[in-house]
Amino acid sequence: MDPFEAGRARALGSLMRDLEAGRVDPDIVPLLSLLNSSPRYYTTSSCSGRIQLAATRLPGEKFRMVVVAKWHRPLQPRELREVLAASRYPDLWMAVQGPILHVACRSLEAALALLEAARRAGLKHSGIQGLGERVMVELLSSDRIEAPLRLGGVDVMRGRVLDEFVERANEVLLRAKFRLDRLAAELQKVIGGGEERI
Amino acid sequence: MDPFEAGRARALGSLMRDLEAGRVDPDIVPLLSLLNSSPRYYTTSSCSGRIQLAATRLPGEKFRMVVVAKWHRPLQPRELREVLAASRYPDLWMAVQGPILHVACRSLEAALALLEAARRAGLKHSGIQGLGERVMVELLSSDRIEAPLRLGGVDVMRGRVLDEFVERANEVLLRAKFRLDRLAAELQKVIGGGEERI
Repeated sequence: MDPFEAGRARALGSLMRDLEAGRVDPDIVPLLSLLNSSPRYYTTSSCSGRIQLAATRLPGEKFRMVVVAKWHRPLQPRELREVLAASRYPDLWMAVQGPILHVACRSLEAALALLEAARRAGLKHSGIQGLGERVMVELLSSDRIEAPLRLGGVDVMRGRVLDEFVERANEVLLRAKFRLDRLAAELQKVIGGGEERI
Repeated sequence: MDPFEAGRARALGSLMRDLEAGRVDPDIVPLLSLLNSSPRYYTTSSCSGRIQLAATRLPGEKFRMVVVAKWHRPLQPRELREVLAASRYPDLWMAVQGPILHVACRSLEAALALLEAARRAGLKHSGIQGLGERVMVELLSSDRIEAPLRLGGVDVMRGRVLDEFVERANEVLLRAKFRLDRLAAELQKVIGGGEERI
């Protein structure tokens, strides 16, 4: 087996186990199935987009932050209030993150076809991250919120303002997740129907 | 002249005019000089990182938002209060955005060398976006804040909380800008000394 095929077999085996164990967000399953149905591609990691509450002085301190809660779906203000009330951390930031996928591609041509589909779907920060026996593509949108909910022990938003904020956050999450459907539709044109056109 | 050389000459001419007119943020000039000193690269756009206040219902609505103010440097709480007091928009979001650069590379090898340097500098969302007579690389970090300052006519932060928020925003901006110095240091190893090692 060539190295790409071997890597693909390992990745698909691991994805099957995750699917079976319910560790994959349903929102992203159709897109993963489509991509992994082509012998030119396999996915190595994915997130369909999420809302995350983290205890950290500054956002982006990946190795020092504590993830307090996360949701891969729109949120009720009540759910957020409960988490806030139960948390003693002095600094809390809420992030809305769009989908992110890492896809191994057999060739540069396959990677470029994927990138074009991603751009048409509005995943505009997508790019090739490395080249070797496989071409690694990161698919990424620019949809993002990263806002403080507590600073130095003081809650930033209350009452109607918190409700309004949750509503906007949900809208950004759904807008970002919608790009997955658009990407699947674009990829159908490239991969679809069993016939490979790249 | 080959197409890459022709594109390079046009881009450098335009950069020179921007430098002369003071339209380039001083923070990014050393990096632009270094990249454009190599015949393998030229930059087509760049931003060193900034704080931006925008009137928009949702962040990321690029073509519908109104940019109310922007700063390519840390901000005084007083400056922000003045802009807020003077603005009648019902919805205001503040963004801290890290550096973003687009670099045309002569070859895939040159692009991969740049990507490796970018990754070592912490610009972890960097990637190749397209391939033709030039290889286009986007250099991008994940440093980001995108937070509401006014929602439905109601100011979200006041007093000490607003001061604290501005302090954190400035820290995220400076952390992001610092990656430009790290990238320049990494690139010196690849481009530096007049000798090209790629």
